[in-house]
Amino acid sequence: MKFLISDGIGTMEGKVRLIPIIEKLTEIVRSKTYEVHEASVMLPFDEVMREEVLRLGEELSTPKQKYVILIGIGGSNLGVKAVYDALRGYYDLLEENHFPKIIFLDTLQATYAGKVLNLLKSHSPEELLIIIASKSGTTTETAVNAELTLAALGTAAHGRVVAITDEASALWQAAKDRGFKILTVPRVVGGRFSVFSPVGLFPLTVAGFDIEAFTDGAKLAFSNSSIAELPENFAMQSALYLYEAYEKGIRIHDLFLFNPALESLGKWYRQLVAESLGKEKSNDGSIVNAGITPTVSIGSNDLHSMVELYLGGPRDKITTFVSAPEIAALTIPSELNLPTVPMVAGKSVGEVLSAIYEGTKAAYRSKGLPHMELVFDGVSEKELGYFMQHKMVETIFLGELLGINAFNQPSVELYKQETRKILST
Amino acid sequence: MKFLISDGIGTMEGKVRLIPIIEKLTEIVRSKTYEVHEASVMLPFDEVMREEVLRLGEELSTPKQKYVILIGIGGSNLGVKAVYDALRGYYDLLEENHFPKIIFLDTLQATYAGKVLNLLKSHSPEELLIIIASKSGTTTETAVNAELTLAALGTAAHGRVVAITDEASALWQAAKDRGFKILTVPRVVGGRFSVFSPVGLFPLTVAGFDIEAFTDGAKLAFSNSSIAELPENFAMQSALYLYEAYEKGIRIHDLFLFNPALESLGKWYRQLVAESLGKEKSNDGSIVNAGITPTVSIGSNDLHSMVELYLGGPRDKITTFVSAPEIAALTIPSELNLPTVPMVAGKSVGEVLSAIYEGTKAAYRSKGLPHMELVFDGVSEKELGYFMQHKMVETIFLGELLGINAFNQPSVELYKQETRKILST
Repeated sequence: MKFLISDGIGTMEGKVRLIPIIEKLTEIVRSKTYEVHEASVMLPFDEVMREEVLRLGEELSTPKQKYVILIGIGGSNLGVKAVYDALRGYYDLLEENHFPKIIFLDTLQATYAGKVLNLLKSHSPEELLIIIASKSGTTTETAVNAELTLAALGTAAHGRVVAITDEASALWQAAKDRGFKILTVPRVVGGRFSVFSPVGLFPLTVAGFDIEAFTDGAKLAFSNSSIAELPENFAMQSALYLYEAYEKGIRIHDLFLFNPALESLGKWYRQLVAESLGKEKSNDGSIVNAGITPTVSIGSNDLHSMVELYLGGPRDKITTFVSAPEIAALTIPSELNLPTVPMVAGKSVGEVLSAIYEGTKAAYRSKGLPHMELVFDGVSEKELGYFMQHKMVETIFLGELLGINAFNQPSVELYKQETRKILST
Repeated sequence: MKFLISDGIGTMEGKVRLIPIIEKLTEIVRSKTYEVHEASVMLPFDEVMREEVLRLGEELSTPKQKYVILIGIGGSNLGVKAVYDALRGYYDLLEENHFPKIIFLDTLQATYAGKVLNLLKSHSPEELLIIIASKSGTTTETAVNAELTLAALGTAAHGRVVAITDEASALWQAAKDRGFKILTVPRVVGGRFSVFSPVGLFPLTVAGFDIEAFTDGAKLAFSNSSIAELPENFAMQSALYLYEAYEKGIRIHDLFLFNPALESLGKWYRQLVAESLGKEKSNDGSIVNAGITPTVSIGSNDLHSMVELYLGGPRDKITTFVSAPEIAALTIPSELNLPTVPMVAGKSVGEVLSAIYEGTKAAYRSKGLPHMELVFDGVSEKELGYFMQHKMVETIFLGELLGINAFNQPSVELYKQETRKILST
């Protein structure tokens, strides 16, 4: 992973404010305990937890495995979907016979759920693995989708059900009563920071991904972001750059990913930023309506959709470009069939995309638009793990700089209360 | 389709400014000509064009048809993807044997393109239909993907290739030279306004959708938006509401779709708003950096991701909620397996989602957040056609109110020039 930034960035004052939190994170990893919300940074270093995940994964693995059904929403599925789609899901439609596949059951959509249930009923329990993930254990959508799934499969599939939840939650208790397998999440770790807990690791290992490489990437990002010196500390650099823009009123952060397989990674980051930093009140209780609005753009698609706005529209955005060059090479014939764009003849697909990417950055530079850049060293578990930990630490830093609590979500209660009122009438 | 708005909206001044454009649009449809950019409103009324599309669709239809490969990007595929995903694509992974499927080849991604080419090579030409869509005829990504596809299939498939482009474009000429079928797009109609031209209609008809119902919905939306009186004119109402917010500095428009199958419809709208209204200069040439930043949220997923920001964060957003109740009914058992959320027992999936939807709107109301609502009468070709035409007219109205040209995209040239420089070295 490389991090590039053109402008000189970061005030000394901002940097100084981050030193105590860097020390705090370092101390958490040293102490190996889960006592504060920031303890999510410990997860990649928690070998005991990872061993338990791997052991259960092996216990439940069958040569017949075709579908992993992940029932969960928000923090309980976005991290898995980010990694899965980057490495396999983006190609699923083109590879009908590549198994196992993960099927995501998140929101409530009767047509979709009905088709999932039909698919499940046409498979034997050994071909399936059902994961019910809800930290609180009382997420409405997850409860509904779990009920539908369990009713469709019957008790024969009970040995193929794993609940991932907080210890002693309603789901934990119910799963225990029914003899389902259970993996627990450290209570202090919030859903959007939980991808390196069993919430992320278990679905990924049973779908065949290398969770050791994934956590190795995270460990590397953590070491990198616990250095107290710029410019080696990417997370500190990007947090200070985003904060500097924020203070100037630039409060939309566009993550512009030049690889469509990374769109779900963008959606994972979108939750992390929106839910962590969008806060009505600051730490001292005053109304601040803080928040960075995250947007996700995909290159080159959104050059044909959003870029007129980005280049010409309001100066209210800061951009992080992400390029993730592919290993696969594909060459355009040098004798073109339809010579409509002669200059692509004989080039590789990657070369043409790279020219578009560099052209886009040049346009941003010439318009003076604030931007930075992350370059993946290929799309792999390790690089995804690096990116995700980097972004979680960046978000913790930003919470500190904005003076808000990055770990709660008080406003969400409002719609939940209203929903419960309606549901209980 | 129902349109609901809670606040009193729209200044008389704004309304008066829209009367001439309403008259202009009505005159275009009466005259049945394509002479000005706004002539896109004529497309659903153009029976000659639709007949040609249907005829070619029938000519090329085979009982063996499995895959339609749509090679196109931006305005050349977003409209088709919007309709396809809403009605079928969202379920494609769950229905391996449901054909024909549309495969979209838009950006440059070697791994994905390689897998598409493998899929194509394992099918006979009669199972495939290749559509190359580019208005200008010189879109780089489309040229590259077309070359790769044609090289993989060889001349045996030439009878199964259709080019959709402007008359006399480079693609038009090359397709003519090779004897491909050609459908043309009226030159004055821009890509983002072209969904009711052959760009949208041809791929949809060959994939089995009812394009008559689709254009019927559009006609209805047009009649509805050519009434000079509020509140019957939904497009005028929503344009005035968005404009009023814009003038107050509220420049993010969130389209919050409570049906995940509509996500691609959101992306189609995102292009329409961003590219039409994001402009550096106003009609009189002064620098205004105008633009509404469109965002797309999906209910209920983004309640678990974005809503803390929306309810507690910066007051810089206006929201259009879209609900699209499903016909399919699915009931949760009254005897729950895991009684974690007891109040869902015996309810239908739709009822629970509806409670969440109403709960969300109640939360927005109690926070005083500006919002409006569109209610689909089910997800169908007709309702999608209504929505799309409604939104295109709304965007034309907003261009008028903002005093900018909604039909060009001058800033995009900047990155294209830079890219060409790199590609030609």
